[in-house]
Formats: sequence, structure tokens, C-alpha cells
Amino acid sequence: MTMDAASKIRKQFAFLAELDQLKSVIRQSPLINRTRYENSAEHSWHLAIFAIVLSEHADGVDPLAVATLLLVHDIVEIDAGDTPLHDPGRDIGVVNIKERDAARRIFGLLPEPQATHLLSLWEEFEANETPNAQFAKALDRLQPLLLNTLTDGGTWTRNNITQEQVMQRYGPVIEGASKSLWVEAAALIRRHFSKVEGAEEAKTDSVESNV
Amino acid sequence: MTMDAASKIRKQFAFLAELDQLKSVIRQSPLINRTRYENSAEHSWHLAIFAIVLSEHADGVDPLAVATLLLVHDIVEIDAGDTPLHDPGRDIGVVNIKERDAARRIFGLLPEPQATHLLSLWEEFEANETPNAQFAKALDRLQPLLLNTLTDGGTWTRNNITQEQVMQRYGPVIEGASKSLWVEAAALIRRHFSKVEGAEEAKTDSVESNV
Repeated sequence: MTMDAASKIRKQFAFLAELDQLKSVIRQSPLINRTRYENSAEHSWHLAIFAIVLSEHADGVDPLAVATLLLVHDIVEIDAGDTPLHDPGRDIGVVNIKERDAARRIFGLLPEPQATHLLSLWEEFEANETPNAQFAKALDRLQPLLLNTLTDGGTWTRNNITQEQVMQRYGPVIEGASKSLWVEAAALIRRHFSKVEGAEEAKTDSVESNV
Repeated sequence: MTMDAASKIRKQFAFLAELDQLKSVIRQSPLINRTRYENSAEHSWHLAIFAIVLSEHADGVDPLAVATLLLVHDIVEIDAGDTPLHDPGRDIGVVNIKERDAARRIFGLLPEPQATHLLSLWEEFEANETPNAQFAKALDRLQPLLLNTLTDGGTWTRNNITQEQVMQRYGPVIEGASKSLWVEAAALIRRHFSKVEGAEEAKTDSVESNV
């Protein structure tokens, strides 16, 4: 082995060890079994499988290319933290600067040209212009949506988010990449909120009957 | 959307929701920050990035194909649990039967031909015959090795594993797929055990000087 190969491998090991920290970045979504909140590393794994399984419902996307974008898309959170979708105080301008600095530092641990290549994957996801990136973004909305509908509303309930807000925040991103996935996702959202309304009415009825 | 597409998406959503359970399968390896043990979902994410970053050090492998094998390789643990490498009581015959049943049940939640396709990826990993599968197996040894050397021995210390046993259990699998990765990994192993010996000697010296 040349010294060059050895020094390359050592840089790659340092990068891979650094990534371990993504397992400690906690998101707002609960696991379906509600034992704890999801972390960004396992979220990224879940999303990569979403890409492999669901890419047939989007036009002109490469399943493994989408999976790769999703495997790297949250690495910047090691420095910048997770920015919840429903956080009213989030300042996207500040978040973007923090994430760009994080991407330069973390991908910069790799030897070239790999550092530039992985940085360009993260940039492709962020720019949201290619069909692969747009579908990756759609899956990044769809996965928490699915978790929320299976945990009595999850982050929606926790943040008092209405059905209308859910439709606005998830609809265009998912429907823009795949109409058929949005039809099914919207059905799950409506079913969730009709159950919530049913429960509210039952509560009101029971209060009234107690008066 | 045809009824066929809708029913396909519902099966795919059910499969993806089922996978959430892999986030609750706990492995023996500690995180590098030692706050808790690693779970199999985040481990699979980490491994997929190992594949993307390190495939240049193996001959005849396709980085994204290796990553895909690693994304699905542990899904069977949802039913069969994790089988630690250093567990002296592990019965590989029993584990294999449990894992095969698990693969049929879990991948069988998907519509065809996707169910058969994902099952075949898991079978490729298990059969360990293709260069992609052999490199995937090598990374599945290399990742915990790296975590162990960064956590004062991790599972080695916990299970009283000697340097010779580490060399035997990790060496052939890693070296068979990539000589250059094994050279660097073996150096990390030796450095870890020489530190342990140094600490043991220091302890003995200090006991002796206290007598």
C-alpha cells in the first residue's frame, strides 16, 4: 500500500467516525412504538429505503441516486442541529449559513476529490432542482407524515397543527414529485383528522350529557 | 390513479411502517460518545456511508449496490433480534432459520415483484459469494471495529476478547475484501491493545510501588 492510500484511508476513517454524532441529533418525530424520539441517523436509513421502495411512483428518478442524497442530506445537522418543520421561530437564512459551514467542515474531512463529490450531493439535495432531489425532498416530508398518522398526530398534535396547515406544508412538496403518493398520503391525513374531530365531538357530547 | 397503484402503495407504506421497529433493535456496540448502545437502523445508515466512502479500496465492487445490501441486511432482526459476534452461546443454525422466516414475512409485506427483489438482495448478502456481498460483510466487521477502538475496546473489553481473537474474527473477512483497509484496521487494533497492555503494566507497577 502506498503512503498516499494509507493517508487517504485515515482521512476516510476520521470522517466516518465523525458521522457517529448524527445518531445523537434528536428530531421531533416519535418512533411508531412511542418509546422515544427519532434521531437523524436512523431517519436517514429509513428514508433511503423509502427511496428504494417508492421511486417507481415518480418520473425520471434513479432510486439509488435518491437514496444516496437521503443518506447524506442530514449530516450537516452534526454541527447545525435539526430544524423542525413546525418551529415558528425558525430563521431559514440563519439555518442555511450554519448548514453550509457544517457541510464544508464535515465533508472537508474527506480526501479530494471525494470531499467535493459528497459536498456536491448535499448541494444537489439543498438546491432542489433535479428530479432526484425533488423526490428526495418529497420523501423527507412523507416519512414523518407516515409516522405522525401512526402516533395520534405526533408532531402535529404536539405543535397544534391544523389539517389545513398539514395540507399546505406537505402537499406541494409531495404532490410535485409524485401525484399518486400524494393521493394516498392525503387520505391518511384526512383519516387522522376525522378521527381527531370524532374524538373532540365525543368529548363535547359527553361533557354536555354530564351537564 | 388505478386501484392497482393504490393497493401497491398501501402495501409499501405497511412495509415501511414495519421497518420502524429496526430502530428499537439494540446492538452490543456503544456509540463513540458512549451515551448508549447503537441500534440496527442507525448502524445500517452508518454502513451504507462506509460503502460509499470506502468502495474504492475493493476490486470489482459497485458502491451503491454495496450500500443497498447494507441498507437491507439487518431488517430480519426485527423478528430474529441481533446476534452478537462475540456471543459464545450463539447457534448459527437456529439463527439462520429464524432470519430466513423473518425475511419471508417482512419482505413479503411488499407487492410483487418488489418483495422477491428485496428478498434476493438479503439472500445475496447472506450467501456472501458476490464481490459486493463480500465487501458488504467486510464493512459490517470494520464499522464495529472502528467504534471499539474509539471506546476503549467497546465489545472486546465487555466480552474479554483478546487481540488474537480480534485478529481471527475480523481479519479474514476484511482482508479478503480489501488488503489496504485491513492494513489500517489492524494498525488500529494493535494500537488499542498496546494501550491496554500499557495500562495493565502501569496498574501492576502502581500496585507494586504501593506494597
